[in-house]
Amino acid sequence: MNKKIIVGVDIGGTNVKLGLVSAQGRIACQTSFSTKGYIRNKKELIRAVIDKIQSLFDQKYSSSRKIAGIGVGLPGLVNPVKGIVKFLPNIPGWRNVPLADIIQQKIKVPVFIENDVNLIALAEWKFGAGSGVRNMLCMTLGTGVGGGLILNNQLYRGEGYVAGEIGHIPIEQNGLPCNCGGWGCLERYVGNRQLQATAAEVLHEKGITLEDVCARAAQGDPLALKFWDETAVTIGNALTGIVNVLNPTRIVIGGGVANASRFMFKTIEKTIKQRSMHVQGAMVKIVKARLGHKAGVMGAAVLVMDALRHKGVARRQAGL
Amino acid sequence: MNKKIIVGVDIGGTNVKLGLVSAQGRIACQTSFSTKGYIRNKKELIRAVIDKIQSLFDQKYSSSRKIAGIGVGLPGLVNPVKGIVKFLPNIPGWRNVPLADIIQQKIKVPVFIENDVNLIALAEWKFGAGSGVRNMLCMTLGTGVGGGLILNNQLYRGEGYVAGEIGHIPIEQNGLPCNCGGWGCLERYVGNRQLQATAAEVLHEKGITLEDVCARAAQGDPLALKFWDETAVTIGNALTGIVNVLNPTRIVIGGGVANASRFMFKTIEKTIKQRSMHVQGAMVKIVKARLGHKAGVMGAAVLVMDALRHKGVARRQAGL
Repeated sequence: MNKKIIVGVDIGGTNVKLGLVSAQGRIACQTSFSTKGYIRNKKELIRAVIDKIQSLFDQKYSSSRKIAGIGVGLPGLVNPVKGIVKFLPNIPGWRNVPLADIIQQKIKVPVFIENDVNLIALAEWKFGAGSGVRNMLCMTLGTGVGGGLILNNQLYRGEGYVAGEIGHIPIEQNGLPCNCGGWGCLERYVGNRQLQATAAEVLHEKGITLEDVCARAAQGDPLALKFWDETAVTIGNALTGIVNVLNPTRIVIGGGVANASRFMFKTIEKTIKQRSMHVQGAMVKIVKARLGHKAGVMGAAVLVMDALRHKGVARRQAGL
Repeated sequence: MNKKIIVGVDIGGTNVKLGLVSAQGRIACQTSFSTKGYIRNKKELIRAVIDKIQSLFDQKYSSSRKIAGIGVGLPGLVNPVKGIVKFLPNIPGWRNVPLADIIQQKIKVPVFIENDVNLIALAEWKFGAGSGVRNMLCMTLGTGVGGGLILNNQLYRGEGYVAGEIGHIPIEQNGLPCNCGGWGCLERYVGNRQLQATAAEVLHEKGITLEDVCARAAQGDPLALKFWDETAVTIGNALTGIVNVLNPTRIVIGGGVANASRFMFKTIEKTIKQRSMHVQGAMVKIVKARLGHKAGVMGAAVLVMDALRHKGVARRQAGL
């Protein structure tokens, strides 16, 4: 597999990113294009992805290497076993699309698909802030609050492939109604929109951005520092349940809001260590995600590496 | 292994239970003795366990069969990989006891140890209410609220072997202080002691037992029904986080309080389905534990079966 190259694709609501990734996790070359022009045309979007894969590969390697496999991340509900995209909340028209088969029929190599947050978790675990860790949670703080779980050195998907939704841990018995249909969910308190509303209140300034609040905190503004501290306590409270139940050694936090890490992470860790059980609390570390906007493409490559390796092990076990 | 017999031992704060278990999960014979006489003498307790195993086996099989392995469950912190009992909160003097080695030196067969709640989860998964399920939580409602997780058809232990502590999921950001050092933990609301105090308040009767509240509910007493309903909502609220994060298909609930299952389970399931995300909520079922006081001994046997099978697979893979 070392001489072969893996293609990672990260389909988002705003951009599609593509990269050629080595087995060591190095991105040989990367490109991207806006999702916008294709937002209402599923077939065109798939065709654009296939064309980009082909041209990216031809341009870099022509015939000197081969593609070992293609991994694709998507922002929504995916059946990774059947290779079907079930539903994408922010890209209309995607329902039960057999994406892996469609791509595989055009480019004759194995294709694997997965939810994008799960791919970030895979990337951070293999090549980023969770390297060498057996049990970890990767959390993304943005408009939504998402999560991916690595348990016993494997991506844990759950029965319906929707595990990891830590944004929807209830933190209050009664609480604010959430888009998911529930109430009191973590996301309802620390999702971007609510954070901006809270910041406007705490700092007495309508329309203030989270970047502004970061800048103010860097200047020592006590209200800005208080805002991040209280946000960190809320996050720590929710993560306490995860720490007590899953006993991970690392929690990797990424996403836009993680840019305020220096104002939050100590308090998140302190809250968890204060509130969680002794053994669990002592073992866990809170760290910032390392791979940034490359995580999706790299995670898509890790997905392919793991799938091909497991296939290899299964073949060897079967004596093939 | 079919012709060999497995010994399951369930060491509790009150009783030690022992049984000879077939590969099909049938308990051929079972015995028990009070822990009381040995509560301050670790060596004597271990000797009594070893003697009981020997006499139980000799009495049933003499030399016609062999012991394939011994599994032991303990009410506390265990390192199952090293076979060491780290700490038992309710049996004094147990700190860093190499129990597996000690028993193995006397009875020359493989010995495995595990936390008792994890063994209940293993038993219910293999032979009880979780049979055939790939991802499940087993919850015990008693003085403490414990849990064991089966994820991807395996007991999930966590990095320090302390995963599954669902009694210590915070259900409120601020809340009642808990023995664990945290606050707002589920156990603090639905552990036996608190339930009794709450029942006395709700039913306006000092010293009322939970059995009484069950009897009253069975007679249609609206206050008793209200008490169980509110308890069920609290449990459902805490389980919502688990359902969203781990996406299991079954939650098995046992322990003394589960005797009120007919007054609680519908409301627990309704609360989870109302409050959790759509896909996760639709997949999960709440069911009562089936194995009762036999679960510990049976789970200890499942532990041995799994360990010996994995050893067999590893040997076959290594070509031995």
